[in-house]
Amino acid sequence: MIKIAIDAMGGDNGPSPIIEGLILALKKDKTFTAIAVGKKNELLPLIPNKFIDRIEILDTDDVISMSDSATDALKRKDSTAYKAIELVKSGDAHAYVSAGHSGASMSLATLRIGRIKGVSRPAIATLMPTVNGTTLVLDVGANVDCDAKHLKEFAIMGQVYAEDVLHMESPLIGLLSNGEEESKGNEVSKEAFKLCENIPNFVGNVEGNDVFNGTTDVVVCDGFIGNIMLKTAEGVADTIGKIIKNNLRRSLVSILGAVLMRKVFKNLKLKVDYAEYGGAPLLGVKAPVIIAHGKSNATAMKNAIFQAIAAAQSNLNITIEENIKLYKA
Amino acid sequence: MIKIAIDAMGGDNGPSPIIEGLILALKKDKTFTAIAVGKKNELLPLIPNKFIDRIEILDTDDVISMSDSATDALKRKDSTAYKAIELVKSGDAHAYVSAGHSGASMSLATLRIGRIKGVSRPAIATLMPTVNGTTLVLDVGANVDCDAKHLKEFAIMGQVYAEDVLHMESPLIGLLSNGEEESKGNEVSKEAFKLCENIPNFVGNVEGNDVFNGTTDVVVCDGFIGNIMLKTAEGVADTIGKIIKNNLRRSLVSILGAVLMRKVFKNLKLKVDYAEYGGAPLLGVKAPVIIAHGKSNATAMKNAIFQAIAAAQSNLNITIEENIKLYKA
Repeated sequence: MIKIAIDAMGGDNGPSPIIEGLILALKKDKTFTAIAVGKKNELLPLIPNKFIDRIEILDTDDVISMSDSATDALKRKDSTAYKAIELVKSGDAHAYVSAGHSGASMSLATLRIGRIKGVSRPAIATLMPTVNGTTLVLDVGANVDCDAKHLKEFAIMGQVYAEDVLHMESPLIGLLSNGEEESKGNEVSKEAFKLCENIPNFVGNVEGNDVFNGTTDVVVCDGFIGNIMLKTAEGVADTIGKIIKNNLRRSLVSILGAVLMRKVFKNLKLKVDYAEYGGAPLLGVKAPVIIAHGKSNATAMKNAIFQAIAAAQSNLNITIEENIKLYKA
Repeated sequence: MIKIAIDAMGGDNGPSPIIEGLILALKKDKTFTAIAVGKKNELLPLIPNKFIDRIEILDTDDVISMSDSATDALKRKDSTAYKAIELVKSGDAHAYVSAGHSGASMSLATLRIGRIKGVSRPAIATLMPTVNGTTLVLDVGANVDCDAKHLKEFAIMGQVYAEDVLHMESPLIGLLSNGEEESKGNEVSKEAFKLCENIPNFVGNVEGNDVFNGTTDVVVCDGFIGNIMLKTAEGVADTIGKIIKNNLRRSLVSILGAVLMRKVFKNLKLKVDYAEYGGAPLLGVKAPVIIAHGKSNATAMKNAIFQAIAAAQSNLNITIEENIKLYKA
């Protein structure tokens, strides 16, 4: 039976949404159990009796806060993040989920659980909404300076995740660039283009809009650009929402219009709401690690846990190791 | 009197929208004249008699097409772009506007008109919509690989353009990064942060969403990232539009809602429509050069021409030269 280790204290809003999300997940999927790592006296009252036998609590006081540095995380062996990672390292749990300090989770996972053979740098992947589905983008923040070889590893890891965990059929991989032609790109991306040519389903360069129009299934970039793209997408969606709202206020007729369009806006919100996608997997470490948003609500946590389960049930890490060896230049 | 040199043939839709936009501009602003460079027999029928004395035609046949390489542009001395640039170089015109091959315009402007003293690399700047105004972003495509010194020059040029041409008061400059803290950034951006610290109104690192929420007036990045951000913003806006449309089709009630919200959507469209902003100035060359979108309609061309006039009437290039000298590290 799959067992998920959860950093139960790390999120911006304390343990409530985390445990609530876990309960939602346990209700829907009867095939897993969880170890919640955190302050027992805070966690216990949040767990209904009905679920007490499927949630083990590992009692610990120390919580790495968002203002702490990621490097400190390695020294604080009693922290919720450290203990939860150790459960995965020792094999007592099969996957790790945290809405806490993402840098701490990344460092701990990389250094304590360890990298998959052949992976130089783990990468964070995230799903972006398109009109008819989603695009997996990586790296979105783990590595700000990347060379061409790193980008190639991201391409391979993304493709395996899309296929084995997201169950996409023959996912297409694109390299994020400033134009589609092979001649486009900066120094690093041009070199990465050449390295990626032996990966099946590598379609070459793609542009920023390709991420959202669904022409490609996996888009590869360095973590600096990935973060900027993610924040840009959030910013544009927010701004459009605000402009609509500001204009609405000006007329009763448009408010009536908005009421009639409620369902349309609701569908739109579902599409662009990160909570629907759960968390972001850290690909390249030896066990599934899901980094959830600090502001995750119960739905986001539930979906992050489902991601962890799906990854733990897949052959993800074996296939990544095999493919990196296979497509080595 | 200001005289604008216009590459009248270069756009995706031939000379019609270009001349139409020029006529709109001439109607609104009686203080300038234009030289339209292109095929006389195609241009002449597009010009109403009333405006014939304010539009000079420089007859030439060769047009650099979108599929030609930018380096060829320097050899094709009879092309519309080359001849229009030469008019500015010789002083017969004060500014250049083109909706043609942007790489050709950039190369010709940089090599024929020349760079401002102290500028290593000209940069393309563009306006992005925010809830209450606009943000100037540069570089959005002229330079894919930049070092820290280039980014500093972009910061100075952007600030001067915002102040002298866009008439923003004490515009704030931000450096695009993956987080606000000084410790965030990639190698180049961290070095650029240090170099920019002696520029007044430099606010440090900003994130992708800051471009759209209007916290900063000028945002600086390299042309690779700038292009990706631009395309990402277009992609997100398009996708949101399509999701709304697809959901609308499903119900009569929501169609009625959309009809009532027409004005809201119209205002939104105005906000995100590049045509309202005209073209993108190439900053750092010795005369105003405006690169318009290949698909520019008449409104976009009109606004691009107004940008050229505003730049030609300003002290833009003198102030850029002074400030680059002033803030040299």
